[in-house]
Amino acid sequence: MEKIAVSKATLGRLPHYLQHLRTVFKNNDEYISATSIAKSLALGEVQVRKDLNSVSGAGKPKIGYEVEELIKSIEKVLGYDNLTNAVLVGAGQLGKALLNYEGFEEFGVRIMAGFDIEAKKQTSNQKQILPMEEFSKFCKENNIKIGIISVNKESSQQICDLMIENGISAIWNFSPLRLNVPEGILLQQENLALSLAHLNNQLVNQN
Amino acid sequence: MEKIAVSKATLGRLPHYLQHLRTVFKNNDEYISATSIAKSLALGEVQVRKDLNSVSGAGKPKIGYEVEELIKSIEKVLGYDNLTNAVLVGAGQLGKALLNYEGFEEFGVRIMAGFDIEAKKQTSNQKQILPMEEFSKFCKENNIKIGIISVNKESSQQICDLMIENGISAIWNFSPLRLNVPEGILLQQENLALSLAHLNNQLVNQN
Repeated sequence: MEKIAVSKATLGRLPHYLQHLRTVFKNNDEYISATSIAKSLALGEVQVRKDLNSVSGAGKPKIGYEVEELIKSIEKVLGYDNLTNAVLVGAGQLGKALLNYEGFEEFGVRIMAGFDIEAKKQTSNQKQILPMEEFSKFCKENNIKIGIISVNKESSQQICDLMIENGISAIWNFSPLRLNVPEGILLQQENLALSLAHLNNQLVNQN
Repeated sequence: MEKIAVSKATLGRLPHYLQHLRTVFKNNDEYISATSIAKSLALGEVQVRKDLNSVSGAGKPKIGYEVEELIKSIEKVLGYDNLTNAVLVGAGQLGKALLNYEGFEEFGVRIMAGFDIEAKKQTSNQKQILPMEEFSKFCKENNIKIGIISVNKESSQQICDLMIENGISAIWNFSPLRLNVPEGILLQQENLALSLAHLNNQLVNQN
């Protein structure tokens, strides 16, 4: 598999390009220019060029990008050809909201199941919530690579360690505790309060 | 009120500094050096200096920062002296999770209430969930400045417009729709799928 790392900002725009390109492709257009894409999506032309060149290489002068090829390139970067399997531990309110959040698969990740110590939490819409006893077996059988942590602060390091023991190599942490992970393990700390704080700080300084 | 805009990264570290400084203050230490703070919090010294100088001005050579003054400066930037009032619209799973998320007040924002079209959703822990009919009155009476949107894609622009009509000047949007706001209104788009996509992209490119 070809490996292309793109910036988070570019990544965020890729689904919009993809959606537009699929519409264009249905209309049997073979080529598309950056100018046309920029206009349709209300983006800057320089930005569109930069984004698309980073996933696919430059378009042809005066012709543009080959639509079908560009679609395939974006799908590859977004992981459509190879969904990464994820699990979530901690099926409280936030956990359930994440389990049922639409749009993760659009970015190449499939949350296979949620886990919780409380056995009474059995299902949440279509996603199954399993007891922790089944965690290890499930991770191994389903080649789970991403672990999402939405337990409380007190349990989060323990859950993180358990995930790594079971072959998970990327952790997405929603608990407010800063986790320790060994080298080679990817950790992304999500701090919802921080986003709100940033907005508030801008607001206070604007007035 | 003194106005200080700091970077999102610095903002994220301020509560850690604050917690540490309060402990130091309890021990009756009048001054503290950046070196000591850096060591205690496992941060780089240059970073600590940069962070603290951006909120408080430089420390005194060979003496360091005045602990009490530094605490007050950080509290001011975080908005402790003047909490901003917020409301949330859309009390589904994600909405409820946000309503009960701990730590927003620590960053200067108080979510006063949630609103939902479904009257059956009445309360969620301590936070009240009110019917939409009460929205305008509530916003005006409580000087609401921040609106959090956790409704579905279809309703989000309508809710955003309603918020602005009622004096809200900063929007934190969790719906996947890109909202249109007039000039002067702050908009922060939260895309949870995007954070996960970023983690996945790093993972795929690491292997």
